[in-house]
Amino acid sequence: MQDDNTRHREKMQRIKAARDRMIATKTGEKGLIIVHTGKGKGKSSSAFGMVMRCIAHGMPCAVVQFIKGNWLTGEAELLRTRFAEECRLVISGEGFTWETQDRDRDIAAARRGWEAAKGFIRDPEIRFVLLDEINIALRYDYLDIDEVVAFLLEEKPPMTHVVLTGRNAKPELIEAADLVTEMTLVKHPFRDGIKAQPGVEF
Amino acid sequence: MQDDNTRHREKMQRIKAARDRMIATKTGEKGLIIVHTGKGKGKSSSAFGMVMRCIAHGMPCAVVQFIKGNWLTGEAELLRTRFAEECRLVISGEGFTWETQDRDRDIAAARRGWEAAKGFIRDPEIRFVLLDEINIALRYDYLDIDEVVAFLLEEKPPMTHVVLTGRNAKPELIEAADLVTEMTLVKHPFRDGIKAQPGVEF
Repeated sequence: MQDDNTRHREKMQRIKAARDRMIATKTGEKGLIIVHTGKGKGKSSSAFGMVMRCIAHGMPCAVVQFIKGNWLTGEAELLRTRFAEECRLVISGEGFTWETQDRDRDIAAARRGWEAAKGFIRDPEIRFVLLDEINIALRYDYLDIDEVVAFLLEEKPPMTHVVLTGRNAKPELIEAADLVTEMTLVKHPFRDGIKAQPGVEF
Repeated sequence: MQDDNTRHREKMQRIKAARDRMIATKTGEKGLIIVHTGKGKGKSSSAFGMVMRCIAHGMPCAVVQFIKGNWLTGEAELLRTRFAEECRLVISGEGFTWETQDRDRDIAAARRGWEAAKGFIRDPEIRFVLLDEINIALRYDYLDIDEVVAFLLEEKPPMTHVVLTGRNAKPELIEAADLVTEMTLVKHPFRDGIKAQPGVEF
């Protein structure tokens, strides 16, 4: 048992030394363009988790919800009631496109959201901006992908992080991003007749 | 333009009707076994996002951190300072195994965490339990996968949700789970020499 533990310690010392050498080469700091996409769960909730981290670190942040406007999601409610000082919140969307059934209104809402987003990103006080479900607005061409990517690359202050979420991220955005995660659905209880539930889904 | 909008509305009405029919078949409620795995980012932060949702909905919850014990992560700090009443927090782990370099101590820490986890899961007041990075403890056999799966399937109250995170989820756990998401790494700024940064990584 002691021998096992000694071997384990030696192996772990080697791993730690290799990791420390690797980490020592990572010295840069940079405001990142981050994309969460894919059909799996966790795209928005992990971005909200990052907002909570920023709040914990005293980093002012901002959220624009592009699509889920008429859902009173738990996160938006929490930001509004408990963290109004730490995090700005704009809800531009009025629901999914099959709920509003009005393309002109959806386009107008997306553009309002994008104007708010640009203001937050340009604001030197704000260090982290979440553009929740903006990929849906981009996918339907409610917003112009080239305009969004050009703004991020040219006008985003160097130390500001911007997170863009939603399925079907456009290739231009993936190309411009620093950090891209795809959430992949492995198993989902919908197929067993389980409905969306508070805490888990909203 | 008006014609475009009319066609759009008709198409969206059909999509909405199909969705409404699908959703109407999903009437069940059930406490879920949820797994976040894969090499990508967002496994822990989306689980913390769900904890925040539960807090927003007034659902009492609990978190056991199995591995990141000596990291003062933003989330743990926020739970401790702002949500101590809404969410119980136990930190059993003392860091990654290559940090502690002591297998016996890692095993003891994992077992302490699992005892706390069982208490939270059995507690009828608690509706949502996050076992953060438990997959690491399972992978190194610090905890017995059969014992963990049997407990979840046999002793978890029917309406309690349990979320288990970490890379390399064991097949037995995936088999037992209701909802499994794999976070897939598409692009990471580490390769460009960017270090872990507050808000984004911790």
